[in-house]
Order: sequence, then structure tokens, then C-alpha cells
Amino acid sequence: MYKKILIPYDGSPESERAVEHAIRLAGSLDEKPRITLLNVIDTRFIVQVSESVYIDMESLEAYSRSILEDLKERFMEGFEIDTVTRNGRPWEEIVEEAKRGGYDIIIMGSHGYGFIDRLLIGTTAENVVRHAECPVLIVKSRREA
Amino acid sequence: MYKKILIPYDGSPESERAVEHAIRLAGSLDEKPRITLLNVIDTRFIVQVSESVYIDMESLEAYSRSILEDLKERFMEGFEIDTVTRNGRPWEEIVEEAKRGGYDIIIMGSHGYGFIDRLLIGTTAENVVRHAECPVLIVKSRREA
Repeated sequence: MYKKILIPYDGSPESERAVEHAIRLAGSLDEKPRITLLNVIDTRFIVQVSESVYIDMESLEAYSRSILEDLKERFMEGFEIDTVTRNGRPWEEIVEEAKRGGYDIIIMGSHGYGFIDRLLIGTTAENVVRHAECPVLIVKSRREA
Repeated sequence: MYKKILIPYDGSPESERAVEHAIRLAGSLDEKPRITLLNVIDTRFIVQVSESVYIDMESLEAYSRSILEDLKERFMEGFEIDTVTRNGRPWEEIVEEAKRGGYDIIIMGSHGYGFIDRLLIGTTAENVVRHAECPVLIVKSRREA
């Protein structure tokens, strides 16, 4: 059914719920899929305030890798896991990674509790649904209901 | 994992692709879920042109039931299937049925190839993603990619 699952993860409780859901789904399929955890460093929020302030992308990438490794340790026992860090606009990078890697499904959380949330972050899920070529499973947070 | 799956179906090729996908997923889960096929008669497009024109909701409902029965025969061998017909605005009825029936997941197609499509129909999937309390799996049509 799903040989390759892509799970975008941004460190939020919502995306953690999506990870849990994805793992349960993966575990209940008759053939175990290969899972890729993706963290996108949202470069829209990185502003070069002055030339003397050095934006240390290497540290950001190391941090990104560390939260993915932490996630992997906490949830993923018994699965084959890859981790990927990308920089850019989250929905674009998710769609691009899904295409590049030929994933069978994207499983991700939906933000968007409040108005500002929806403006800033909620559109990530909506844009992925709109632009991805593969099926997209959106896991809702209970608080959104 | 998923005990109850809700599959909205509107007769379009896109929603048929979603049904096929849902059936494959249901078949690859270690416990077979119960499936409900839902057709919503979109009453926004039923306009009372004059008092002498009688809108025959009973015929529409009979037609709705017949396309669901047809679908059931074509795809659903080996599954426990219910069919439900509702009248109203599709996304609202889908969200309402999902809540009423305590479904674990909604699996549906995504329209929205062109601008008009998106205005008229594409928002169904988007509104379901936005408002449903349970996970929503959107199956993309290849032509949208």
C-alpha cells in the first residue's frame, strides 16, 4: 500500500500528534513502510538584521537534525527511518521533497486553531493538500475541533 | 487503527479514485474496518424556478442511493458497507456525518484542477480538512499534479 511515508515535523505538539498517528498507521499495515522524517527550517522567519549579525545556518541545521533524531528515538522503534532537513518555505519544501523522493503519502498535522495560526501556519497543510501530487493525510489536533 | 472509514462520493472520476485508494488502504490494514459511503445531494444547485416546477427530492435521493449501491457492487467485495445519503452543502454534511457517526478517518478526493473547479468544488476538500475533527486523507487526481 504505502512503501514510503513522508512525515513533516516542525516540533509543535500538533506535528507530534501526526507522527504518533503515522506510526500507528504504519504499524497496522501488512507491509512495513519506510518512513522519512522531514524538518523544514522556515527561512521566512530568519531576517538578516545587520551585516554584522551572522546567521548561522549550520547551527540551525544541526538543531533540526537533533530534533529529528530525538523524535526517531522516541517513536520509531522497529521502523526504517530516514531524516531530512531542508531550508525554505515549509509547504514548498514538503511538496518538493515528496516529489523528489517519490513518496506514497504525506502524513502531517494541521495547525490553525486561531486566526493568526491559520494565517501563519495553517496554510502549510492547506498548501500541501493543494500542491502535492501524492495523497495527503491531515491529522487534526483535538483542540481544533 | 481505523475501525470506521467514511468515504464521501459524488460520482466524479476524482471521487472514484479516492474510493479505490480507500479500499486498497482498508484491505491492507490488519483489522478490516467498516466502511460508509456517503453521497451528498448538493442542494445549492437545486433552484426552484417557478412554483409549478416540483423539485422531486425523492427521485434525487433514489438516484443517490443507486449510485452508492452501484459503487458498493463494483468495489466493495469482502467489506462491511453502509451507504448514507444526505442533502445540503457537501462539506458541511460530510463534517456533520463524520461527527455523528464517530468515524476514525475521512478519505476523499480533491478536485480543483481549474480556477472554477476550485471555487465550486475544490473548497469541499479544503473545508472538510479545516472543519472535520477526525483525520482526513485527501487523494489527489493525477491530472491535478
